[in-house]
Amino acid sequence: MKHGARNDVTGKVSAILKGDVMSLAKVKVKGTFELSSAMTTESLKSLKLKKGDRVRVIVKAVNVLLVRD
Amino acid sequence: MKHGARNDVTGKVSAILKGDVMSLAKVKVKGTFELSSAMTTESLKSLKLKKGDRVRVIVKAVNVLLVRD
Amino acid sequence: MKHGARNDVTGKVSAILKGDVMSLAKVKVKGTFELSSAMTTESLKSLKLKKGDRVRVIVKAVNVLLVRD
Amino acid sequence: MKHGARNDVTGKVSAILKGDVMSLAKVKVKGTFELSSAMTTESLKSLKLKKGDRVRVIVKAVNVLLVRD
Amino acid sequence: MKHGARNDVTGKVSAILKGDVMSLAKVKVKGTFELSSAMTTESLKSLKLKKGDRVRVIVKAVNVLLVRD
Amino acid sequence: MKHGARNDVTGKVSAILKGDVMSLAKVKVKGTFELSSAMTTESLKSLKLKKGDRVRVIVKAVNVLLVRD
Repeated sequence: MKHGARNDVTGKVSAILKGDVMSLAKVKVKGTFELSSAMTTESLKSLKLKKGDRVRVIVKAVNVLLVRD
Repeated sequence: MKHGARNDVTGKVSAILKGDVMSLAKVKVKGTFELSSAMTTESLKSLKLKKGDRVRVIVKAVNVLLVRD
Repeated sequence: MKHGARNDVTGKVSAILKGDVMSLAKVKVKGTFELSSAMTTESLKSLKLKKGDRVRVIVKAVNVLLVRD
Repeated sequence: MKHGARNDVTGKVSAILKGDVMSLAKVKVKGTFELSSAMTTESLKSLKLKKGDRVRVIVKAVNVLLVRD
Repeated sequence: MKHGARNDVTGKVSAILKGDVMSLAKVKVKGTFELSSAMTTESLKSLKLKKGDRVRVIVKAVNVLLVRD
Repeated sequence: MKHGARNDVTGKVSAILKGDVMSLAKVKVKGTFELSSAMTTESLKSLKLKKGDRVRVIVKAVNVLLVRD
């Protein structure tokens, strides 16, 4: 699969929080840091996500904010 | 600084591509992978970004897409 | 703190609606109009937001839609 | 027109920066602060935006980030 | 109404899933495929959406991801 | 490929507008309407998109705005 997004890292699902309409999945990347994805609970079910699954984490560059302290 | 976004990693600016209205900055994280941020060229200037700068890369969880192959 | 977003206004938290996975915070700006931010409930907790707090409201320019009637 | 977005303020176009594919329009709100919208140059043309035009500035709540210093 | 978004199709509301803070509405387009919009439950109420209503489905081009298998 | 987005339609690339940093691709869906995706020019190149290619058009539900006139 090729896609039009600049950010693509691989990790393992570390936690799932299932809500009424929206849900949250956390993904451990490189064993060091955690990324979070909020999606509809329908998408969570259709992905059949469970802890330990390998997933790709994709973000379009326009949605990335840089900050300097 | 505390913010309402679930994704926040630190890295070093590795490349800058300056365009007419939009620009692209790449950030090397943990020395292993690269993230990209598209922002207005005005933001790039106001941030005074240059290669080697340390920045935080912030993404709201709703903008993160999970994919399984 | 400097960030790569073109929109940044300051206001006071006027209401908080806490949900299971997602929550909503409203911010009164200049005493005249109200902006709303939807975030994960985790982010709401980590920000320790409560009514009356001063916050900055940040939006990337790509997420702003102009409309004329 | 009614829409499914929580943020909607009215202002006057104060500046337009036209690029090859993306363009930027700035809108002065309440005479006090400025908001920016990045859109495709095609959208800019189809809106026939020019300085002084009254427009509505619309943002979905999920795209609003709250920050406290 | 004219707006600064490149994607605009018309359809009929086919399902509504109301959650605590966020809700989901599905829209049948051309009788053939279904699009989904996640919005705040407040927006759902303010739109007074119900099954069968005709709506326009609007998406900014920057939020559209292309994928090839 | 399975992904955590509620909107996924298939179409054919009908036009490409290549800019300095950002580019625009249009996709004809069902032979009837056109969708547009703005991406970095780097993504356009990495996808090797050209007119006539079949692609999937993916949008997260949170980025879809409903409007009624």
